[in-house]
Amino acid sequence: MSEIKGAASLKVQSNAVVPGSSARRPLRIALFGFGTVGSSVARILSESNSDVLKLTHIFNRGVARKRVEWAPAGVVWTEDAEAVLNSDADVIVELVGGLDPAGNWVRRALEAGKSVVTANKKLIAFHGIELERLAAAKGGHLKYGAAVAGGIPVIPGLEQGLAGDRIERIEGILNGTCNFILSKMDEGAEYATVLAEAQAKGYAEADPTEDVGGFDARAKLAILMRLALRVVVDPEEIKPQAITSVSAVDFSYARDLGCTVRQIARAHRTNGSLAATVAPMLVDLRSPLAWSRGTENMVVFTGHYGGDVVFSGHGAGGHPTAVAVVSDLLALAHDSRRVEIPSVPARLGAEFEVPHYIRFTVNDRPGIVAEITGVLAREHINIRAIVQKPGYPAHALPFVVTVEPCKSSAMERALDGIRKMDCHISDPLDLQMLE
Amino acid sequence: MSEIKGAASLKVQSNAVVPGSSARRPLRIALFGFGTVGSSVARILSESNSDVLKLTHIFNRGVARKRVEWAPAGVVWTEDAEAVLNSDADVIVELVGGLDPAGNWVRRALEAGKSVVTANKKLIAFHGIELERLAAAKGGHLKYGAAVAGGIPVIPGLEQGLAGDRIERIEGILNGTCNFILSKMDEGAEYATVLAEAQAKGYAEADPTEDVGGFDARAKLAILMRLALRVVVDPEEIKPQAITSVSAVDFSYARDLGCTVRQIARAHRTNGSLAATVAPMLVDLRSPLAWSRGTENMVVFTGHYGGDVVFSGHGAGGHPTAVAVVSDLLALAHDSRRVEIPSVPARLGAEFEVPHYIRFTVNDRPGIVAEITGVLAREHINIRAIVQKPGYPAHALPFVVTVEPCKSSAMERALDGIRKMDCHISDPLDLQMLE
Repeated sequence: MSEIKGAASLKVQSNAVVPGSSARRPLRIALFGFGTVGSSVARILSESNSDVLKLTHIFNRGVARKRVEWAPAGVVWTEDAEAVLNSDADVIVELVGGLDPAGNWVRRALEAGKSVVTANKKLIAFHGIELERLAAAKGGHLKYGAAVAGGIPVIPGLEQGLAGDRIERIEGILNGTCNFILSKMDEGAEYATVLAEAQAKGYAEADPTEDVGGFDARAKLAILMRLALRVVVDPEEIKPQAITSVSAVDFSYARDLGCTVRQIARAHRTNGSLAATVAPMLVDLRSPLAWSRGTENMVVFTGHYGGDVVFSGHGAGGHPTAVAVVSDLLALAHDSRRVEIPSVPARLGAEFEVPHYIRFTVNDRPGIVAEITGVLAREHINIRAIVQKPGYPAHALPFVVTVEPCKSSAMERALDGIRKMDCHISDPLDLQMLE
Repeated sequence: MSEIKGAASLKVQSNAVVPGSSARRPLRIALFGFGTVGSSVARILSESNSDVLKLTHIFNRGVARKRVEWAPAGVVWTEDAEAVLNSDADVIVELVGGLDPAGNWVRRALEAGKSVVTANKKLIAFHGIELERLAAAKGGHLKYGAAVAGGIPVIPGLEQGLAGDRIERIEGILNGTCNFILSKMDEGAEYATVLAEAQAKGYAEADPTEDVGGFDARAKLAILMRLALRVVVDPEEIKPQAITSVSAVDFSYARDLGCTVRQIARAHRTNGSLAATVAPMLVDLRSPLAWSRGTENMVVFTGHYGGDVVFSGHGAGGHPTAVAVVSDLLALAHDSRRVEIPSVPARLGAEFEVPHYIRFTVNDRPGIVAEITGVLAREHINIRAIVQKPGYPAHALPFVVTVEPCKSSAMERALDGIRKMDCHISDPLDLQMLE
């Protein structure tokens, strides 16, 4: 039986001796935010007994009720952000989220020459370029490995392992809350019930709009587009479709089509033109994206040279996200600079041409299918299948039309026409089918 | 329609301006080996028009027959290794493979203060620690992102994104040749036919022992064990089981058990004790490891904090491997140092306790099952199922016994006893079942 002493520690006691590195003092770390992720970061730092990372400050509003007795001795607990920004901390770990005041704290820290590690996807999606410039000008570093896909090393993988490729497509499940809700609905639960369960488990906020509306995934997609497709887009150009209009009947029809429904964030570049979207989509059950369950995240990058590379794992939660934060801190402690990925400003100019699934709910009468197919034909949209499952009442009858790949704009024009018909009980639901 | 000028290039023209970096001269790169991977590296460098990476030398035996007209102008083609080692190249990219003479060239380059990028898993598995020490002492860097899983950023992901976790388990498909052979056999082909096809396609060597014998996967597992489990083991302590004894009948039985067969490399640490193995195993069809087809690679790391993280993609082939090499070169060009993962020497001391699948081929007579189950019972091995499919002749009858989790040593003792029976037409095949 072999003894593996210290193998689990983060101590730099490497076999590869780097001259001089042992003499350096540890990186002094100030945590902004002591919620789920913040306390996991403190927990890992405290359990790892690292001699390169030292937790010195914990900032939180109403900090008195946050104190834990297992935190490293000597940590300053405070609700005075100014004092921490003016302290001798080398790195601010920003885990508060949102644009304000978190963005202000991050700017202040970078201006003071400190480095920043953050999990704030919104801040990075909207202001990442400006903040990176500020960090470079002041001699600090900005790292945000935790901002996309939590504990899955998607950002380090892109920067360090795929920088040599020319990535042409991104397809991902980037929001664990939506994946939890949709995979539970896939098992038969109703949206409202699952949302309540997600809220009880801490997966969803009291106001779930950021998640279910697609805004969270959109911010993450914009970050991945910069590092993978090397374009800087205004996240607000990406129009998300909420998952709230997907219901049990859609899972039932999807299953008949060999599919399930997932919130997919995707972007691609073809002939110098960009397309990006976040929406609930029909996903083939044989696709890796259909395998992810619960709060899992998954990203597939398609490279010109390397083909498909898939990353998956826990995209949210305190511990997985904290792993990404601590890994970024270790990279800072080892002077492992980011590989700069060049990027250029760009606008979305292309549309996805994909098959669509349209679910109608109608008060049945003769001629409905003829009218709908007529409108589709005028937009040159070819029908693939019309499916109507038995067992629904004629006054609120759901049925599905799937169509061959067509541009979203053509489908929108067709739907505008179809909506004018008097038979609809609810608005038709248009879902892209991922192929 | 948006124009994305230069988005596909590797030029450092980043939005994040790093003071001084633009003034630096490009990294001068010498390629050792101009086979499939080497020419892909040259191709990517030449198409990327990078201003931080400059290909200056290409070394190959009999270089005259290797010359291509698309290589960057001014490249020195040579079969004189000494001249390149004494040249002003900053980095040697070693793609020759094997311990000798490649290892000697790598040592010479590091001693001269050059950096080395290599895809040589054998060299890194056996001499990585020594070579890293040499690089650090002489001021150079050693990078080997291409040594494991080709184009999948497993090593950068471990170093940069999972360094903050404490990884406890590795399970992977690390050899594309074996995965190609086994996934083709899964579709009904015979071993010899598929091996010939793999050889014709360049996936397998004329002597396939390194791959099918498990030696290639073993070297890669040893490298992952150092970076993930933080232990340095002698690769020869890991005893591989060849895939050559798996036959069509095993896929048929596996399918009945809800499984397929894959070559799996796995290692884990429990209570300070290490176990590692490379072998064909029964893999549940619902496991991610059963999804990989053809030459794909896949690795699952299980972290104490972050849980399971899965990487998959093209683990071999010129272009994917070249992506890893070029990414390492870009990291060198950007002074992105490796995050040093501490590690300690260790020995394998533990056994996996897993269910086993044992396929017997016997000349049938009464009492065989009673004798076999008797021997198993004496080793306290509990039987899970006995399966015998119809349609085989009585004089060469294959049947399968699966057992509850037991130590490998107990199973070996039982098999030694069972082998003494006079009924065997071929040696019983013992496969671990991955759970």
